[in-house]
Amino acid sequence: MKLTINRNYLNDAIQQVSKAVSSRPAMPILGGIKIDVTHQVIVLTASDTDISIQSFIPIEQDQMIVATIHEPGNIILPAKVFVEMIKKLPADQVSIEVEDHFRTTIRSGSTEIQMVGFDPEEFPLLPAIDQNEIIQIPGDLLKTMIRQTIFSASTSEQTPVLTGVLWNLKDNVLKFVSTDRHRLASRTAAITAPDQYQFNHIVIAAKTLSELSRLIPDQNTMIDIVVAENQVLFKVDNILFYTRILDGTYPDTSKIIPQTYETEMVIDTKSLLEAIDRAYLMSREEKTNIVRFMTIDEHTVEISSSSTELGKVTEQQKVQSYKGEPLKIAFNSKYMIDVLKVVDSEQIFIGFSGTMRPIIIKPLDHDYNTYIILPYRTVN
Amino acid sequence: MKLTINRNYLNDAIQQVSKAVSSRPAMPILGGIKIDVTHQVIVLTASDTDISIQSFIPIEQDQMIVATIHEPGNIILPAKVFVEMIKKLPADQVSIEVEDHFRTTIRSGSTEIQMVGFDPEEFPLLPAIDQNEIIQIPGDLLKTMIRQTIFSASTSEQTPVLTGVLWNLKDNVLKFVSTDRHRLASRTAAITAPDQYQFNHIVIAAKTLSELSRLIPDQNTMIDIVVAENQVLFKVDNILFYTRILDGTYPDTSKIIPQTYETEMVIDTKSLLEAIDRAYLMSREEKTNIVRFMTIDEHTVEISSSSTELGKVTEQQKVQSYKGEPLKIAFNSKYMIDVLKVVDSEQIFIGFSGTMRPIIIKPLDHDYNTYIILPYRTVN
Repeated sequence: MKLTINRNYLNDAIQQVSKAVSSRPAMPILGGIKIDVTHQVIVLTASDTDISIQSFIPIEQDQMIVATIHEPGNIILPAKVFVEMIKKLPADQVSIEVEDHFRTTIRSGSTEIQMVGFDPEEFPLLPAIDQNEIIQIPGDLLKTMIRQTIFSASTSEQTPVLTGVLWNLKDNVLKFVSTDRHRLASRTAAITAPDQYQFNHIVIAAKTLSELSRLIPDQNTMIDIVVAENQVLFKVDNILFYTRILDGTYPDTSKIIPQTYETEMVIDTKSLLEAIDRAYLMSREEKTNIVRFMTIDEHTVEISSSSTELGKVTEQQKVQSYKGEPLKIAFNSKYMIDVLKVVDSEQIFIGFSGTMRPIIIKPLDHDYNTYIILPYRTVN
Repeated sequence: MKLTINRNYLNDAIQQVSKAVSSRPAMPILGGIKIDVTHQVIVLTASDTDISIQSFIPIEQDQMIVATIHEPGNIILPAKVFVEMIKKLPADQVSIEVEDHFRTTIRSGSTEIQMVGFDPEEFPLLPAIDQNEIIQIPGDLLKTMIRQTIFSASTSEQTPVLTGVLWNLKDNVLKFVSTDRHRLASRTAAITAPDQYQFNHIVIAAKTLSELSRLIPDQNTMIDIVVAENQVLFKVDNILFYTRILDGTYPDTSKIIPQTYETEMVIDTKSLLEAIDRAYLMSREEKTNIVRFMTIDEHTVEISSSSTELGKVTEQQKVQSYKGEPLKIAFNSKYMIDVLKVVDSEQIFIGFSGTMRPIIIKPLDHDYNTYIILPYRTVN
């Protein structure tokens, strides 16, 4: 294997795949990046077995020569050092040459690096995925769906399936649900999918979706998604992102949402966020993060929290509209902050069905999101 | 005590003094901020006994009313919660009222906070400092002097005096020296001082200087410095910053610097920094950070480092001028990077007196800085 390549193209591809490099690899090769060079394309691959990322570098782009292939071939290079070194090389061009016994020489300007790589044949095979059924979604929409749901996934490995986000597709509507048993977030979106195509019970790890999100560019990119038996493949521009589907049975959350409310109100999102955030500052000193939420009159609610050591904070919050019974309830301020931070509406609807029933939060101007927070049982 | 105050002024002063609040206070009051209110001025004070910071808020500034004093008095409020809460209050004005038993109410917009403060009489007294001898230095110069020396101070508490920077003043020249026994940094500057005034062997903790540096605004501020028996006082705008002088005898470093060199050269600072940085990436895998530095001919040096596990990097570095014997030496790449990052000259002079003698680095266009790195003894 021998080639000369534009350093920026190589560096971008390395940064993309490096997110799948194992930081503590079970086998040395999983701490490496595989490079496959043909006369048509250069492919970089990294995998920690949960996720695998491939980045494709064209030989030529926009009539500019990106790489010159002197001899096709492949190699695995240890990502440690390599990832940072390529970024810091002095010249615009980098040459990589593999000789006997995987000995590799990288040259750029007056810098020469010698490394010993690994046998590329030992790299794990990527899952074979049948590309018949492809769904398509704009990148910024997928990023929003991820941002509006991952925070509610569990961080405890005790119930691994709850560390993921549940995906369902039916009638061209994609739905994400996440819950850690104390709260729930859901988001739906109309997308492009083949006729009659549907799936349910696909669960993808929240931290994987967070990594995927970082790979999606801000400008509008169409993303192809293929769901296979135990893998999901995402195609983002020149990148293929493979992830494992989490095992386990995701709980049925469809019956949690009440159909009627005892008390309902509309509140300005930003000012409620700021008020709860101040209450949180005091409540977190007690570790529980509990705030109390109480109706005062039909225009006002009071939000308060206290710390035995430090004192008490009390907030008067204006309500845009209010209907139903007077209310006194307590909940985790951090859970409410997490919701209010991702809501993209200026005003929110909050529905209560009693002090021990789920609190429902929805944006006022659309129906795509539903958030649920379970209240705390408190003494007073 | 009762007052109403502009939130921004109060917040700025809190942020300034909060750097001196003990994070794990030996006594609860040291985890607090003392507020003294008179009809003339509001003074905030925090102290962790090593450093103490006072910030003075005027009652009126630029014909704007900053605060309205209803009743003078004082209180200590726990910094935890208070520091962040004031930043997040909803309105431009904040009122603070202290009642019986140090019970304090803070109000802003529709937010009300109740805290129990501490007896202000229990706060440690600040050192009484005789203000007879004042030296003056521009803030940006002091920041530069700190930045160019603190990195060489020791981080080990085994010899506490070496965790500080040594200050000397003689003939209106202020000199900073720091060393951790493996390297040394020094910086001199001509400053304004009273006639014949001099001091030596004042040692101030590097981490204190780093805190001080952050309090100095970027625009040109004149800083007054008063050196007392075991304290140094800095006056930065409306802030007084007190620090303890470190105990112990600072080693005499004056005789380390060789007067003649076997080999000397001039190198471009930035390209040397980049070359050593690449060598560092490989060397740090071996924990030692060792790089080898070798003259090739009168225009070129070779910089190399290797990791038994990962490989080797070799750099050819152009030399601007070169005089003396051929050279092969090894040193800690991190130490050299630290120096090259703070040098403010485009080219540097490096002088060598043999493979086991100190390496001297100086900026080419002035004489204010001297840096020393001790080489490594290596086998080959």
